[in-house]
Amino acid sequence: MITKGEALARIASALDYPLPTEFRPLHDALGAVLAADIRSDVDMPPFEKSSVDGWAISAEGHEPGRRYGILERIMAGTMPTRRLLAGQTSKVMTGAPLPEGANAVVMVEDGEEEAESVILRAKIRPGQNVCHRGEDLAAGQIVLAAGTRIDAVVLGVLAMVGADPVSVFAVPSVCVIPTGDELCLPEGPPPEGAQIRETNGVMLRAQVRGVSPILRAFSPGIARDNPESLRNFLDVGLDHDVLILSGGVSMGDLDLVGGALKERGLEVAIEKVAIKPGKPLLFGRVPRPHRPPAFVFGLPGNPVSSFVTFELFVFPFLRRLLGEPFEARPEEPATYAGTKSIARIPREQHLPCAIEVDATGALRANPLEWHGSADLRGLVAADGLMVVPSAGPALEPGMPVSVIRLPGHRPARARATHRGGGH
Amino acid sequence: MITKGEALARIASALDYPLPTEFRPLHDALGAVLAADIRSDVDMPPFEKSSVDGWAISAEGHEPGRRYGILERIMAGTMPTRRLLAGQTSKVMTGAPLPEGANAVVMVEDGEEEAESVILRAKIRPGQNVCHRGEDLAAGQIVLAAGTRIDAVVLGVLAMVGADPVSVFAVPSVCVIPTGDELCLPEGPPPEGAQIRETNGVMLRAQVRGVSPILRAFSPGIARDNPESLRNFLDVGLDHDVLILSGGVSMGDLDLVGGALKERGLEVAIEKVAIKPGKPLLFGRVPRPHRPPAFVFGLPGNPVSSFVTFELFVFPFLRRLLGEPFEARPEEPATYAGTKSIARIPREQHLPCAIEVDATGALRANPLEWHGSADLRGLVAADGLMVVPSAGPALEPGMPVSVIRLPGHRPARARATHRGGGH
Repeated sequence: MITKGEALARIASALDYPLPTEFRPLHDALGAVLAADIRSDVDMPPFEKSSVDGWAISAEGHEPGRRYGILERIMAGTMPTRRLLAGQTSKVMTGAPLPEGANAVVMVEDGEEEAESVILRAKIRPGQNVCHRGEDLAAGQIVLAAGTRIDAVVLGVLAMVGADPVSVFAVPSVCVIPTGDELCLPEGPPPEGAQIRETNGVMLRAQVRGVSPILRAFSPGIARDNPESLRNFLDVGLDHDVLILSGGVSMGDLDLVGGALKERGLEVAIEKVAIKPGKPLLFGRVPRPHRPPAFVFGLPGNPVSSFVTFELFVFPFLRRLLGEPFEARPEEPATYAGTKSIARIPREQHLPCAIEVDATGALRANPLEWHGSADLRGLVAADGLMVVPSAGPALEPGMPVSVIRLPGHRPARARATHRGGGH
Repeated sequence: MITKGEALARIASALDYPLPTEFRPLHDALGAVLAADIRSDVDMPPFEKSSVDGWAISAEGHEPGRRYGILERIMAGTMPTRRLLAGQTSKVMTGAPLPEGANAVVMVEDGEEEAESVILRAKIRPGQNVCHRGEDLAAGQIVLAAGTRIDAVVLGVLAMVGADPVSVFAVPSVCVIPTGDELCLPEGPPPEGAQIRETNGVMLRAQVRGVSPILRAFSPGIARDNPESLRNFLDVGLDHDVLILSGGVSMGDLDLVGGALKERGLEVAIEKVAIKPGKPLLFGRVPRPHRPPAFVFGLPGNPVSSFVTFELFVFPFLRRLLGEPFEARPEEPATYAGTKSIARIPREQHLPCAIEVDATGALRANPLEWHGSADLRGLVAADGLMVVPSAGPALEPGMPVSVIRLPGHRPARARATHRGGGH
């Protein structure tokens, strides 16, 4: 059995070819990763721009109280039509271009307008209340580097420089297939006998969406524990870039799923990892003619094991496939705030915990009541997983430990003390 | 001008009616909020279940080395057909139900199988390697409370108890409309003259998705600065539950957008907030016959102001409409780690900053170079916003300050020190 670190290294090194790229429209690019540096094709601002509503003048000839003739009124989105001469001004709105001959703007509240002239009472220096052409972005300049993940702000910058469509690393297609004769669909009461409702498909698809808003997972249904069903589902699943199977990898079943995958030429990289929950974990790739290989994760069927192994292993791999560095979910230092000592076992444990932040900003991890890897409800209230390595003496209250925060959860202090008004 | 806190209180109290609810299928419920408590309709496990591959026996009559006749083999997903008598065992796979007459399971590696019998070498106590019926969930028990946000784990639990479709607070429809004669579409070079590319529509729609994966914003295009265009776009926008306008709320333009909204009966709750960036901010509601009112946010047109006011004000309001408590983005204590003193102004400042975590877990805020509210690129590298209140002496290096983390960003320590193998 290999350690978590060794498993992560094998997963990271399985991707040994350059990632393909594609162009995507900006309205469908949130969460993808830039495949090339982006240069601006414009100066921003594109002209000398007023940063206030006011009166554009030449600062050099100005003194407070001077009267100016008004040439025109310039709105944002319109161009000045006339050049200022001495003693002349044009009214400019916020964001409007300055007319030729102007290099400063007196704020509108400092002017006293009368018919076609205005008395400007304020002092002014050249450049005051003016944004200079190219001050934020200069044409030709690199404004975003390859490898940048596209979030809301990056989308705005891409729009600003006209990068629509934009070149990104190709978004991988993902397929999720739960396996098992004991599984039935969630709708309606379970049929008589030993059937339990299938939970992992809908959960894993949500976890895939949690990796990036650009990712979706396809799910063709539940595969059954017989070679024909598995073959049919693998026909579908291996057409995707990443196939995530759940169940069928524990000792009793492995021959069936493993056998079906070996028929397709699976190159096995991982079979078991020394962690709890989640010991059985299959990872490898299936070569495909004229295409990159399909990557296959076989996760344990117990829901908590399936959830945890996804976050530990599949999450960083999908991020990497999207074009980001391979980076495991961060482990942050914390203090074990439970009351019982926790014995070490030969596997690294990952226990659902509540995370609190104390007054100094340090984290405290408090394990939750939990009945083991089938007890998915025990995970609902968890902020994260407390990591207990396999080596060393028992973990005692107050000892240092590390925690992995779960997506969508945040520590208790932020939740409890920063409410706005009402409700 | 009102403070940020007063603005948040007015936004929170604008929602004064019970939220409508709807049923959604689980595959389209991620990010919605439960409108009712969820009870389990099953026991989980649904039967006395083996937690290992092994031999089911009655522990009472057992001693190590005893030989048992093998009755049958029970897979997960099948029911036992025969009751054990003294000296009998059935082989059970992980997750399979125990046969009647059994109350413990000897692990498969502790048995020595020969033809139709097996010698079991291990000691065993009643209940060993057995998960009891109803141990994780009992039928009739409340397993998830109303108000719970649906994440991947909650989806799994909902599937487990058959809550598909599930009752949630109705997902609001959202419309984003940028306004301004100076705006052109991102595709292609901007036309001659004072045109700049429109950035806020695609950015705000991404911010709406960032509130919850269940939310989408519709965008019908760019409204122009004339009454007819605004009227046409309001026809579309006010048909949605929330209308987000960007631009057209600064002093020079307010009459136009405000006038068009007042024609529709806008009840104004907010016109200006004492913050920078973002002073002009319009919020109110437009009554609609036989429906809840439409809520309207008029955000400033400068991209950074638009981004910041969304995160400060629209974000908590959309969360509340989805069925969660009204809760502003948390402000966390930090130390000002810049080198220059920052003067107070009459408005509360929100400055883009990098956030570092020091060895004790405490946060350090370092403002980034930034040219003001049009400089969206200055926000790309920001982890968050440093909040400088309007009152008090100048902010000096080393003084306490607070920070608001931006979505999708995380502090430097986590990024730098927890990489997995490779790449």
